[in-house]
Amino acid sequence: MTSFVTGLTCSECGRTYDHREAQGTCVEDGRPLLVEYDLGGIRRTVRRDDLAARIPTMWRYRELLPVEEDENIVSLGEGFTPMLLSDTVASLLGVAQVWIKDEGRNPTGTFKARGASCGVSRAMDLGISDVALPTAGNAGGAWACYGAAVGLGVHVAVPSEAPAITAIECRAHGADVIEVEGAIDAASRHLDGRIAEERWFDVSGYREPYRLDGKRTLGFEIAEQLGWRRPDAIVYPTGGALALLGIWRAWVQLIELGWVEPPLPRLIAVQSTGCAPVVRAFESRAEDTEPFEGAGTVASGLLVPASIGHKLALRAIRHSGGTAIAVPDEAIIDAVATMAREGAVLASPEAAATLAGAVALRERGDLAPEDRVVLVATGSGHKYPEVVERAAGPGG
Amino acid sequence: MTSFVTGLTCSECGRTYDHREAQGTCVEDGRPLLVEYDLGGIRRTVRRDDLAARIPTMWRYRELLPVEEDENIVSLGEGFTPMLLSDTVASLLGVAQVWIKDEGRNPTGTFKARGASCGVSRAMDLGISDVALPTAGNAGGAWACYGAAVGLGVHVAVPSEAPAITAIECRAHGADVIEVEGAIDAASRHLDGRIAEERWFDVSGYREPYRLDGKRTLGFEIAEQLGWRRPDAIVYPTGGALALLGIWRAWVQLIELGWVEPPLPRLIAVQSTGCAPVVRAFESRAEDTEPFEGAGTVASGLLVPASIGHKLALRAIRHSGGTAIAVPDEAIIDAVATMAREGAVLASPEAAATLAGAVALRERGDLAPEDRVVLVATGSGHKYPEVVERAAGPGG
Repeated sequence: MTSFVTGLTCSECGRTYDHREAQGTCVEDGRPLLVEYDLGGIRRTVRRDDLAARIPTMWRYRELLPVEEDENIVSLGEGFTPMLLSDTVASLLGVAQVWIKDEGRNPTGTFKARGASCGVSRAMDLGISDVALPTAGNAGGAWACYGAAVGLGVHVAVPSEAPAITAIECRAHGADVIEVEGAIDAASRHLDGRIAEERWFDVSGYREPYRLDGKRTLGFEIAEQLGWRRPDAIVYPTGGALALLGIWRAWVQLIELGWVEPPLPRLIAVQSTGCAPVVRAFESRAEDTEPFEGAGTVASGLLVPASIGHKLALRAIRHSGGTAIAVPDEAIIDAVATMAREGAVLASPEAAATLAGAVALRERGDLAPEDRVVLVATGSGHKYPEVVERAAGPGG
Repeated sequence: MTSFVTGLTCSECGRTYDHREAQGTCVEDGRPLLVEYDLGGIRRTVRRDDLAARIPTMWRYRELLPVEEDENIVSLGEGFTPMLLSDTVASLLGVAQVWIKDEGRNPTGTFKARGASCGVSRAMDLGISDVALPTAGNAGGAWACYGAAVGLGVHVAVPSEAPAITAIECRAHGADVIEVEGAIDAASRHLDGRIAEERWFDVSGYREPYRLDGKRTLGFEIAEQLGWRRPDAIVYPTGGALALLGIWRAWVQLIELGWVEPPLPRLIAVQSTGCAPVVRAFESRAEDTEPFEGAGTVASGLLVPASIGHKLALRAIRHSGGTAIAVPDEAIIDAVATMAREGAVLASPEAAATLAGAVALRERGDLAPEDRVVLVATGSGHKYPEVVERAAGPGG
């Protein structure tokens, strides 16, 4: 099959772009482009209940994904991760039901595999030979892994402040690792120069449209795995907010397809108090975030002081009737322990932040006793041995 | 439903035991007990092709699993892991096809989740409140995790020679960790005393029958995911050999059910030259292994110098027309790199040993150019950061 994509539009000014060519951000305003689908055509082609018999990966939503040629799909079995119902965590939170969406079960151990699978597949569609991105966490490893699967050149700028495993994982998969002194913004700036010189394709978050589109599958899965019934709230750990936005777009499209009933589930962004630009902007009713000064948190995936996608994320949170909350690092580490003991999931600190956030939300009344809540556990704790060790406490 | 189990029989002397009570090893000879099923009843109840529509976990084979009451099933979405077809690895090996069975995608990052899911479920059936096992690797973490899911008491003896992550993972899931000076045999001996005192249920490998039975699902999946067609060889990293045996039993049962055609796929055991009791016994045509003196290998899961199950494993390898091979640690570390670069799977050293073994098997003629080969990648490299770092090579 070919795709149902009709084109790309700027999320800010609405200017349209041809998806049959490689595109970056909007030439007018530098904002992210969104992929548009012929939803009417999809509705006529596939029925919601046809999906049940399909492969247990994110590619079960083939018609809703942007890849042109089936042969270009690069899949390592990503997505359709378990939704684990936890009565213990639900009673601990004082809500009706809690599901932990265990994204650590993806290839490379995090939800980043979804963006990489979709992005690398589209790179194959477009005949791209080399891609580049900065990474301080899990995105680099995911792109390196999917790149390895098809021999795509992957160039990763890793800041010296990133955990050691970041560069090691990328190198293990054969990526070209460029080490840059400083933090993620230094790595980004360095890479901008190299990209221009080398004519690599820039796949930084929001800089190409297809990472976001792969992450929409998280939203489709939450709907399908709950029998196409809306949960009351989806709690998401928010750094760049790409996946939060993906979930929002997914549900908007599902409603338009008639596969789920409105309204949207409330989308709730959790950040660390050490880096909470989205929470600050949400609380001050700002349209966009301000760069968060002096950012620092144990949850390295949440360390995104500013992003060209934050404005869109704020719009999504508000549109869904959701909210945003920040939790301190100590609460995140406690939540790693609680999730492992009560929820039987050894989660990354970002993933566990959803539980810490849910506790605080329940206390301030943003989660109610009758609520059915999804905690999106974005990654596996196995990639963060120091944090897990702190959470486990001292030995006997 | 209740189960199709008819009873337990000693793998050595054939003595039978009642599965409705908690059982250990044979009281006559101390050998493992095997679970027997009413395969005729299963054949009349379920058709092979009914399975396609079932949940993508190992519990899709519900009739072939020993749990009595559905409500006792403890599932975190284990099994039905991807079979990744790798043309690159196949051409590198010079064989027709290679699939990597990516077991690192299980809960707790290894195939041990299968045994723990089945074993903990049966413990619930039997009303057991506390279980105990020694662990130098991934079994302890798996039991701790599944125990946490249902509040089962899990007591884990961890030898001081085990990697640090072993005890940390168990503690994170709230298990009672008993630290013992020395190696795995010291931990075992220490635990034997405590088990007698405390009346814990012993779930060491082969000491209860249901871990093995859960691992059979690996064999069912390989068959189903290949369209019920036999691969020529299944290459398995062999420590205690529990899963190798599980795959053998699965295929014997599938043939009896008429779901696959005979003969069996060749089962090939890979060990490290640092601990190769099964390979030695196989090569010397011995019936059982001798304890391997001075054992040591980077692949800690292969560090099983002796086991009450090795005799049965040797029988299974020979019955299938398979073989056994040992590879040095340097080849295992190289294979971690090759699997990450060419196969796009960041594998544990045990998992990568299958690739090192396959290279050696091809060289000595035990794999042929027309062979279709499954490499069982038992665990994720994320649990072995030091090994992955060595495999990745120096940065900069």
